[in-house]
Amino acid sequence: MPESNAPAPPSLATGLLAGQRRALARAITLIESTRADHRQEAEALLAEVLPQTGRSVRLGISGVPGVGKSSFIETFGAALIAQGHKVAVLAIDPSSRRTGGSILGDKTRMEGLARDPRAFIRPSPTGGSLGGVARRTRESMLACEAAGFDVVIVETVGVGQSETAVADMVDLFLLLLLPSGGDELQGIKKGVVEIADLVVVNKADGDMAEAAARAAAEYQSALRMLRPVTQAWQVPVLRCSALTGTGVPEVWEAIGRYCDAIGEDGLAERRAAQAKAWLWSEIDDTLLARFRNHPAVAEALPAAERAVMAGEITPGLAAERLLQAFGIAPEES
Amino acid sequence: MPESNAPAPPSLATGLLAGQRRALARAITLIESTRADHRQEAEALLAEVLPQTGRSVRLGISGVPGVGKSSFIETFGAALIAQGHKVAVLAIDPSSRRTGGSILGDKTRMEGLARDPRAFIRPSPTGGSLGGVARRTRESMLACEAAGFDVVIVETVGVGQSETAVADMVDLFLLLLLPSGGDELQGIKKGVVEIADLVVVNKADGDMAEAAARAAAEYQSALRMLRPVTQAWQVPVLRCSALTGTGVPEVWEAIGRYCDAIGEDGLAERRAAQAKAWLWSEIDDTLLARFRNHPAVAEALPAAERAVMAGEITPGLAAERLLQAFGIAPEES
Repeated sequence: MPESNAPAPPSLATGLLAGQRRALARAITLIESTRADHRQEAEALLAEVLPQTGRSVRLGISGVPGVGKSSFIETFGAALIAQGHKVAVLAIDPSSRRTGGSILGDKTRMEGLARDPRAFIRPSPTGGSLGGVARRTRESMLACEAAGFDVVIVETVGVGQSETAVADMVDLFLLLLLPSGGDELQGIKKGVVEIADLVVVNKADGDMAEAAARAAAEYQSALRMLRPVTQAWQVPVLRCSALTGTGVPEVWEAIGRYCDAIGEDGLAERRAAQAKAWLWSEIDDTLLARFRNHPAVAEALPAAERAVMAGEITPGLAAERLLQAFGIAPEES
Repeated sequence: MPESNAPAPPSLATGLLAGQRRALARAITLIESTRADHRQEAEALLAEVLPQTGRSVRLGISGVPGVGKSSFIETFGAALIAQGHKVAVLAIDPSSRRTGGSILGDKTRMEGLARDPRAFIRPSPTGGSLGGVARRTRESMLACEAAGFDVVIVETVGVGQSETAVADMVDLFLLLLLPSGGDELQGIKKGVVEIADLVVVNKADGDMAEAAARAAAEYQSALRMLRPVTQAWQVPVLRCSALTGTGVPEVWEAIGRYCDAIGEDGLAERRAAQAKAWLWSEIDDTLLARFRNHPAVAEALPAAERAVMAGEITPGLAAERLLQAFGIAPEES
């Protein structure tokens, strides 16, 4: 990627705000770079365009492999574009390094959307912790908004922690389900259904239509039982077929109802809370990384963790000793 | 509390290991003290008795106010004592400072249990963050085990975060429910039912028996739908009446089945993971406290948080500036 080696020209912000796709691609490359000078440029760029961000609907979409995420986003995105929207799709996949790029493989299947000038598709940044990937995705989302995309979709696979990370950066978290019964059968991790603002059973077509209706009814009743209504919103369970397009417009309508239900103030509150949580996770990640990388800590840590896990030392005492190695003396708490 | 001002005599560990209730009370007072010299003594004491800990069933019990936690623990504890067990009850209530001691009020109602020499009841340590309260409770749990209590119950009210803290320090997390339909009606916080290893509908007596049966069936089906089976354990939903005692022995039997199902290895694994998580939460809490209390950070923080929440600065840049104020320069990530 030659862009990442050149300093950001002063015109990058201008190009980004003019909605140039090439400028957006370069901005994201800068955001994803781990070089210190690139980070500074990325931060300067984001600071410059920040007033022009925030004017999109931020959607998180998740679902286990095989649920049809790519087909859904392809059909859903095409419907939005037909209504005059500009749609950006970003991916979070902390497993992509290990599995050899499962989402990247998916991306090549969103062919229609990828060719459309009103869409922008960016595969997951590779490498780094979930925290690092999440930060870069959040910043890329801002870049997409600066470039005039008014629907930003953050997609993730159902691998556990990444769903929470995505739910924490979007306005609405949509979970795609298979037309079959129960989390265990579907391979859904514990707690993922509960963080969804909207649940959609995909593949509700042909032979599966009946199973989809049954699954939707069962999930709806389970959600009514376990999940308290928040922000005047009872999570609906919809059905659709990305293959035939049936039910896909209704998903966008439900998103509209959700936005109406929480209102502008509710949305602003959610985003402010997310921004604050992001600030603290950045601080926390950095502090813990410094701690782990401290030579004396790095040396003592493996034995300390082993002793704690074996019950040979209390975690409190082990923590105190490691903190002393880091240069922090105990104090009154 | 005069004990907390005296240094721990060398005999404290001996008294604790001999099962002296007075020694246990003094040990916990030492553990709860925030004085640096007391902390050192507490740590020395715990290090000494550590080999004699871990031999209890650690139970977490939670439920919203009004569910009958105290009555349940009273009836349940009496049944265990009748079987030859020694039962300790510790409480976690981060709200007790604010509400004027809601759990303390409850405790006076466990009169039968409080008078029994085979039981030990300790109200929640007041003051401090949830993290601090949790640490002291974990350490108090070890002290109870050293004193020969073979069932340690950690009780908490349904105020949100404290349930997770309790679930993270016990072998089995039991949630008490009211005989009524749905989390919203019951006032249960999102996600709390999902962390339970055992769900018990209390007040299943008289006029409420039918409603309790209905609630149990509904929760059972919702849990089957949403929660994957972990560790070869399908969470059962039982019914009992703390008032009449009906169903209470069955709760202890279910706990036995749970222990059999996860096995000794499963239990050791769970405890090792908890100990490791505890180590890291101690480290993390301390690092963040140092950060917040740093003069330059403390001065800049309120404005930085406001600007981040208002969308005037990216959280990434704000974090970097605060970390610089703390003395940490940015580096390649």
